[in-house]
Amino acid sequence: VADPPSKLSEEQVRTRIKDLPGWHSKNGGLSRNFEFKDFIEAFGFMARVALLAEAQAHHPEWTNVYNRVEILLRTHEVDGLTDRDITLAAAISAIA
Amino acid sequence: VADPPSKLSEEQVRTRIKDLPGWHSKNGGLSRNFEFKDFIEAFGFMARVALLAEAQAHHPEWTNVYNRVEILLRTHEVDGLTDRDITLAAAISAIA
Repeated sequence: VADPPSKLSEEQVRTRIKDLPGWHSKNGGLSRNFEFKDFIEAFGFMARVALLAEAQAHHPEWTNVYNRVEILLRTHEVDGLTDRDITLAAAISAIA
Repeated sequence: VADPPSKLSEEQVRTRIKDLPGWHSKNGGLSRNFEFKDFIEAFGFMARVALLAEAQAHHPEWTNVYNRVEILLRTHEVDGLTDRDITLAAAISAIA
């Protein structure tokens, strides 16, 4: 098991978010809302994110209501954001 | 398109819930929390529920955090519960 990653400072988070269009700070995490044509598209997206998340061993907190998906990323071990969240956010954006 | 189903009365909801162990009333809907071994098991369950929901043309509001899934069922057209929710709840219980 790798060492826990280090927590990003508020300044680091602000800087990193600039490179992640659509993502914003929420409840100490990194959040983004996605909207799709219908449930099939929304769940198809979720299935792709699930595979990514499992491969990165870092998982989103997320809610789905029909064609909408809200994702919240954070790293529980540090009670904040780490590079893991930034990496996963960028990967999710790439497939959205 | 079928007629919208009729809204169940509070009395009807109380009666129907007795046949749905684990489900409870929440925010005017029908809710149940599921816990699995890990994310793979949780998302595998969600994929099965997604296929069921799409086939029934009735979709859950749900949240997943790692190995936990919280499901809320309700019928927006009637702002409450209908037979559609009861049917989907029973189907979800059967695969959990």
